[in-house]
Amino acid sequence: MLSNTYRTRIEWGDCDPAGIIFYARYFDIFDISTTMLFERALGMKKIAYLKAYDFLGHPLVATRGRFLRPTRFGDEVEIETAVVACGRSSFKIEHKLTFAGALAAQGYETRVWVVRDPANPKKMKAQPIPAEVVAKLTQAPVA
Amino acid sequence: MLSNTYRTRIEWGDCDPAGIIFYARYFDIFDISTTMLFERALGMKKIAYLKAYDFLGHPLVATRGRFLRPTRFGDEVEIETAVVACGRSSFKIEHKLTFAGALAAQGYETRVWVVRDPANPKKMKAQPIPAEVVAKLTQAPVA
Amino acid sequence: MLSNTYRTRIEWGDCDPAGIIFYARYFDIFDISTTMLFERALGMKKIAYLKAYDFLGHPLVATRGRFLRPTRFGDEVEIETAVVACGRSSFKIEHKLTFAGALAAQGYETRVWVVRDPANPKKMKAQPIPAEVVAKLTQAPVA
Amino acid sequence: MLSNTYRTRIEWGDCDPAGIIFYARYFDIFDISTTMLFERALGMKKIAYLKAYDFLGHPLVATRGRFLRPTRFGDEVEIETAVVACGRSSFKIEHKLTFAGALAAQGYETRVWVVRDPANPKKMKAQPIPAEVVAKLTQAPVA
Repeated sequence: MLSNTYRTRIEWGDCDPAGIIFYARYFDIFDISTTMLFERALGMKKIAYLKAYDFLGHPLVATRGRFLRPTRFGDEVEIETAVVACGRSSFKIEHKLTFAGALAAQGYETRVWVVRDPANPKKMKAQPIPAEVVAKLTQAPVA
Repeated sequence: MLSNTYRTRIEWGDCDPAGIIFYARYFDIFDISTTMLFERALGMKKIAYLKAYDFLGHPLVATRGRFLRPTRFGDEVEIETAVVACGRSSFKIEHKLTFAGALAAQGYETRVWVVRDPANPKKMKAQPIPAEVVAKLTQAPVA
Repeated sequence: MLSNTYRTRIEWGDCDPAGIIFYARYFDIFDISTTMLFERALGMKKIAYLKAYDFLGHPLVATRGRFLRPTRFGDEVEIETAVVACGRSSFKIEHKLTFAGALAAQGYETRVWVVRDPANPKKMKAQPIPAEVVAKLTQAPVA
Repeated sequence: MLSNTYRTRIEWGDCDPAGIIFYARYFDIFDISTTMLFERALGMKKIAYLKAYDFLGHPLVATRGRFLRPTRFGDEVEIETAVVACGRSSFKIEHKLTFAGALAAQGYETRVWVVRDPANPKKMKAQPIPAEVVAKLTQAPVA
């Protein structure tokens, strides 16, 4: 299935008084990584693909994080993100964040494809992922 | 003019490796303080007043912050927020953040009342503040 | 074991363009909830208990979140946090976040008690949790 | 004086329910931009220069932001950062953030060089900026 590598840097404002990344910031990074994977799969930016497929987004219903070694401000990290499963209206993503070649954190996400509920515009409802999107998410990894 | 006091606590995740609040977090706090002032003035929550007055929000066009003494995780702070000027489509807000009675930070905001541009839904445009809102924002402080 | 209830409000700046809370913000909330539980158990603020027990903190090694229904800006939420296991140098925490009485999100954390590694001050290492702290974390819930 | 250009991208999690960047996030970006300028000037990462010059950081005492046009998730922005004044223990920084060549936001900072107060380790105190650092910050812009 599709995978993508996103590179970023841990910054001073991401770190807490222990001098290491505040763990909630990893989820900010994982969310960007998923967006980057989607943008690559669909060949357009998120703002465009939300419109092209007329949906509200791909929010998480569950996530998991494992933190193996801390990272610090200035650390240039690499996040390898892959689609690991793709169902009718939900899909699963995995992230591996490495620093200097060593695995520092892992993320697992279950996301759903949602639209605004026509019966109640304040609510969202899951919707089948368009076949074209499934095809693109489940394609063989691009080198 | 109207004023309001909002109380919050500086948290571990708001602080940086120097052990003090990361200054950008003060702007998160000031934004909440302005919302609290509006909610008090208009007698409803932001999600309701955006709908009631059919507008997109009151984004900032300019802000200023002064940081006099640092605050730390666990510090219970008090933010006194006041409307200091109210024009046709913009208004000015001041925040005084104190900890243990001592002034720690100040914020100044110029905000505009915006609606979605009918000519281009991707754009926002300033709009006169409804007279009723001006009246409520410029009322004498409530004890 | 010990439990605590923390109340907070979802704010405008916590929400994303879909109009609901950006999920990473739940982890900010869960971290505060864990701190609140500890402060209650140990009878002092985090800044004081880090000093009293001479340790660096209780970082996460793993976490899990489940998001059942979205929350929005202005929603007043309640987080019930409990110690569910307490080992030699690690412990487990569970969070239940409810809005208007309905379960909206759940969090699960495995945290370790760490000190600065004397052999390498840039590193942290796990350390047995002081017996007195274990006793306080595993006490019967206080009404 | 010295200047530097930092490029980043506005992300989904940086934006609020109006669909545009939540203004406090600009200050996160400006702080990174200042770090980038310092790292370039001093030829080492922040974690290294804090140690090399044995100081606690360069916190802000005042800042100002002007927001001219909104940016959105997916926008690739460029921040041009320059030292505009350098005093004995404080200095001034300016940021110009552009998107697609148009000025979107400006930031102004007054920062101080601080060390831990030897008389009270819980306090910080301003200290003269080392002559070598002043020389590097006030050098002619590098092409």
